[in-house]
Amino acid sequence: MGMHVLVIGAAGMIGRKLVARIAADGGIGGRKVDKLSLVDVVPPEMPPGFTGKAWAADISSPGEAVQMVAGRPELIFHLAAIVSGEAEADFDKGYRINLDGTRLLFEAIRAEGMKQPYMPRVVFTSSIAVFGAPFPGAINDEFFTTPLTSYGTQKAIGELLLADYSRRGIFDGIGIRLPTICIRPGKPNKAASGFFSGILREPLAGQEAVLPVPDTVMHWHASPRAAVGFLLHAATLDTAPLGARRNLTMPGLAATVAEQIEALRRVAGDKAVALIKRVPDETIGRIVAGWPRRFEAKRAEALGFQAEKNFDEIIRVHIEDELGGRLP
Amino acid sequence: MGMHVLVIGAAGMIGRKLVARIAADGGIGGRKVDKLSLVDVVPPEMPPGFTGKAWAADISSPGEAVQMVAGRPELIFHLAAIVSGEAEADFDKGYRINLDGTRLLFEAIRAEGMKQPYMPRVVFTSSIAVFGAPFPGAINDEFFTTPLTSYGTQKAIGELLLADYSRRGIFDGIGIRLPTICIRPGKPNKAASGFFSGILREPLAGQEAVLPVPDTVMHWHASPRAAVGFLLHAATLDTAPLGARRNLTMPGLAATVAEQIEALRRVAGDKAVALIKRVPDETIGRIVAGWPRRFEAKRAEALGFQAEKNFDEIIRVHIEDELGGRLP
Repeated sequence: MGMHVLVIGAAGMIGRKLVARIAADGGIGGRKVDKLSLVDVVPPEMPPGFTGKAWAADISSPGEAVQMVAGRPELIFHLAAIVSGEAEADFDKGYRINLDGTRLLFEAIRAEGMKQPYMPRVVFTSSIAVFGAPFPGAINDEFFTTPLTSYGTQKAIGELLLADYSRRGIFDGIGIRLPTICIRPGKPNKAASGFFSGILREPLAGQEAVLPVPDTVMHWHASPRAAVGFLLHAATLDTAPLGARRNLTMPGLAATVAEQIEALRRVAGDKAVALIKRVPDETIGRIVAGWPRRFEAKRAEALGFQAEKNFDEIIRVHIEDELGGRLP
Repeated sequence: MGMHVLVIGAAGMIGRKLVARIAADGGIGGRKVDKLSLVDVVPPEMPPGFTGKAWAADISSPGEAVQMVAGRPELIFHLAAIVSGEAEADFDKGYRINLDGTRLLFEAIRAEGMKQPYMPRVVFTSSIAVFGAPFPGAINDEFFTTPLTSYGTQKAIGELLLADYSRRGIFDGIGIRLPTICIRPGKPNKAASGFFSGILREPLAGQEAVLPVPDTVMHWHASPRAAVGFLLHAATLDTAPLGARRNLTMPGLAATVAEQIEALRRVAGDKAVALIKRVPDETIGRIVAGWPRRFEAKRAEALGFQAEKNFDEIIRVHIEDELGGRLP
């Protein structure tokens, strides 16, 4: 019998790619998936050939999380979140969705397990936003979480809940701290991190892009394809070696803006690089200065999680997955 | 004008000692205290000479936290908690009091501040239970929190909330991770940590005590008097140097059971030591093996927090504060 998979946040950028990949593969880790439950605040698209349901719901509304797990999915991806900027601007909404929503989901699983034994795998997307400056040169797997945003706080709390519910045997959870995803497809957005993608995505499409920080800024990156790979690997991994430490910093690529630009030059030439306009922005500079630059993600690497090794690869993934395999 | 101080958890062991110390001193850090609001699940005792109110309330019941801060106390000690063993036995109660109760308090302060500007100092008692084995030899101030109990999880979440609410300017918070308090006054209890106090308290009173673990077990201790000192120092400390890292591991004394026993011998003689009966208990041994043994509490020490330097001192504090200054 095939697996029933629930994806909460299935209409987001990562959610859509995850569902598309499951549909393309027909399963996860060699096991057939035949039923999908797909939820988001807007109705997600159901790929053809699957039973199940796609619907719109607010995870923080009473009873909605209960509905999500009522079909007893064996595997749950919890990707739903109010993102960093919005959670900072709207205190109540961020706590309601990111903290209460997560807790309601975990409680719904617990309630389901009280009816009859139930032990789904729960893959929770966390973020490197659980960390806050000042940092050591490279952040190891035992560095403490002192978030500098409400979003990072809410993710860190989600991690603690995930670990405690797992320790209690309520579900089999694993938390995945995603690097900054680069190159994000789509239009430029106003996220402070937007330029990391923009300075590659726009020139690759023949458009101008703005670079608001110096070339020396270093950050921690992985492609959307790598992110989906992390989630699928987390879905089938043996969690026994994790012990009680259920949350993992994912591998990524520490690269400076200068290294990003040189990779762009190698892949798309000087003409593409010339489309990057330097317009320093002190506000963005200050925000980015508080972000982590480099991790030693030894635990995740030892468990088989893999990210790109250089920015040429990240750019190639974008060209393959978003631009039909070639530059316009 | 004197200060108005709210103590939540004022009827507990530390709460009572804190209130007694404030009453004896007449103030905190050189500033007069004239009004006390004292709350606990049982009605706390109001010391003579203060205005204010002592009442029983459940911090997790709707509206109760709002009542507690309605008088706009300038200083709030939040000591209320379901303890480790009970929070592990009663999942819902632990989360309700330790997580929801704390959040309701923080939200009540936020609501008060929306009416008109309000910026109380909030001193939150956390615990070394936010840490979970395996540990390095000494746990530094940047070690991650991977609690192995629901109590530790709830305290770690309280720390994250405290830091975020403080960062947001909702209040001026400081979290104090207490060592195991030794010698706890009163009757023996069933806490797994009870023997650390019992093997000293009972022999000092001429009673037998049971030692369930080997002499080599090391743990992290401070006296009740030191704990009250931490809270009072936290109440008046300049929080600016803390930055966004509002939670501090308190200094303490790393000592083995053998060192405890030798201190008892020096203070009360071989006759007292002979009252310790060795009755190995594997369950307690296993629990204690997961507990932290030693910290490097450099940040707290640099900020002026002080604990005892040896077990002779911890025993003397007990004799002075609990036994009227001399052995029976």
